[in-house]
Amino acid sequence: MDLATLFYWIDHLGVAVFAVSGTLLAFRKNMDGFGVIVLATVTAIGGGTTRDLILDMPVFWVYDPQYLYTVALAALSTILWLRYKDYIHQKTLLLADAVGVGFFTVMGALKASEAGFSPLICIIMGTMTACFGGMLRDVLARDVPMVLKGELYATTCLIGATVFVLIEPYSQLVAILVGGATTLLIRLGAIRWQWSLIVFHEHHDGHR
Amino acid sequence: MDLATLFYWIDHLGVAVFAVSGTLLAFRKNMDGFGVIVLATVTAIGGGTTRDLILDMPVFWVYDPQYLYTVALAALSTILWLRYKDYIHQKTLLLADAVGVGFFTVMGALKASEAGFSPLICIIMGTMTACFGGMLRDVLARDVPMVLKGELYATTCLIGATVFVLIEPYSQLVAILVGGATTLLIRLGAIRWQWSLIVFHEHHDGHR
Amino acid sequence: MDLATLFYWIDHLGVAVFAVSGTLLAFRKNMDGFGVIVLATVTAIGGGTTRDLILDMPVFWVYDPQYLYTVALAALSTILWLRYKDYIHQKTLLLADAVGVGFFTVMGALKASEAGFSPLICIIMGTMTACFGGMLRDVLARDVPMVLKGELYATTCLIGATVFVLIEPYSQLVAILVGGATTLLIRLGAIRWQWSLIVFHEHHDGHR
Repeated sequence: MDLATLFYWIDHLGVAVFAVSGTLLAFRKNMDGFGVIVLATVTAIGGGTTRDLILDMPVFWVYDPQYLYTVALAALSTILWLRYKDYIHQKTLLLADAVGVGFFTVMGALKASEAGFSPLICIIMGTMTACFGGMLRDVLARDVPMVLKGELYATTCLIGATVFVLIEPYSQLVAILVGGATTLLIRLGAIRWQWSLIVFHEHHDGHR
Repeated sequence: MDLATLFYWIDHLGVAVFAVSGTLLAFRKNMDGFGVIVLATVTAIGGGTTRDLILDMPVFWVYDPQYLYTVALAALSTILWLRYKDYIHQKTLLLADAVGVGFFTVMGALKASEAGFSPLICIIMGTMTACFGGMLRDVLARDVPMVLKGELYATTCLIGATVFVLIEPYSQLVAILVGGATTLLIRLGAIRWQWSLIVFHEHHDGHR
Repeated sequence: MDLATLFYWIDHLGVAVFAVSGTLLAFRKNMDGFGVIVLATVTAIGGGTTRDLILDMPVFWVYDPQYLYTVALAALSTILWLRYKDYIHQKTLLLADAVGVGFFTVMGALKASEAGFSPLICIIMGTMTACFGGMLRDVLARDVPMVLKGELYATTCLIGATVFVLIEPYSQLVAILVGGATTLLIRLGAIRWQWSLIVFHEHHDGHR
């Protein structure tokens, strides 16, 4: 299997994992099957769609419908699993989201890099690919967006994408593995020990 | 009147109906005239704008400002009518939304089809054109998005657009009429009998 | 200093002011440093990004990363200032937003005009550039969008952009100064005297 094929499958894995995370949130919000379709799809392809629009490249799923089948398959499997289990730990949702973030950060940066954009834009695009799907998911489901709740969300992607960009000139494959692993591990650590970056003192707001 | 002219007017009708639905929601939320302008416009042109961006086609209202006048006229008429009536049935909002969904599903699929995209992408684009304007409307007005509330919302569009795509090779006009009618009737039935697709058992979530 | 350079700096000022407004809202919502990064960035570049996507022009910050440094610098300065002051008046947030709206209305209209679009589209693009960043900020932070709360928000931009478009054929510089000042003054007056445009009678909604 050559590298391009490997990357293609990693990309599909990221899409599948985010579709699972959308389905899990729909379950937690007691939505029915129709809400699941919308939430799974928007979560899975929202980040990459925003990236492709901003870079003025063809939107990835328009010319390769295989991605849409991946979303459908991932959502369906999750529904069947949830019918059997009938509950989810909040941790499961966070974990699915973290794995998706790891995959999408490196794949977003890789796509920008292969199109010849500067390292800074590659880092931003990795972050955007990883963060926007989940952000749309949370806004639609009227949850507090994870990306704003601390726990190093967007910052994790910035770090992971930077690692990718630094290693990429030497080996794409190593850059993807190390960048993705860095993102995933920092994100898991942030969830486990609730890392946050306090920049403001505690305050009470009486000025609405 | 040739087909292109007919389609142009159907498109304007869809825009007008969605502008009405945005205005009705602004009324129900006690917004003032400025909120109405924003909500009517976003609802009416949000879906088609998203479609054109993703297909990398010129955004429809940028090169034909007539659409913006249609939005203004529809919103103004609705305001005058509401000043006279002073109340709306919740049903009226749902009905306006359903008619708009019917028009936009077929017109979105038609536009993708005329640009030469595959049947699957035509179906997705019909659904997106019909669903995104209302989704933006609900997110901005901080309502639960209709598209996630069950009652077959996005699925109706998927079905209607599929009907359109199946008939279109034989006759565009018949495809538009039958596809649009199918969408509208399923949507009305779903509202009337509150169809939903239960995929999860009832559950209580103690894992926040 | 030639005009192009002046406009470039005005554009950066607008970006900086909106980054400040995003940071202030993050402070009021008790977010940590990671939420600040996301909210400041989305507020500052969201409007211009939407404009560039719809006009099918290269997105402004992709080819000039200086804008991203401006966002970072503005957000960092605001954080340091808030650590020292430890409170904000609600007025400060409204004022920062108003100044950003003034800058972005004229710069959005100018960019559309220089690309040769019709006066109506220039007016819409000025309004969109000014309104969309703040709209995304409020949606993400789960606030009622300012743009829907009356006080002449979007309408102010429509008026300011129209003034710009009317004067621009004679002098770009005068058009920018007068258009920007008009927008800012109307917006400040609207906040000070709570202007609203009542188009509906008071009503109570029993039809949910």
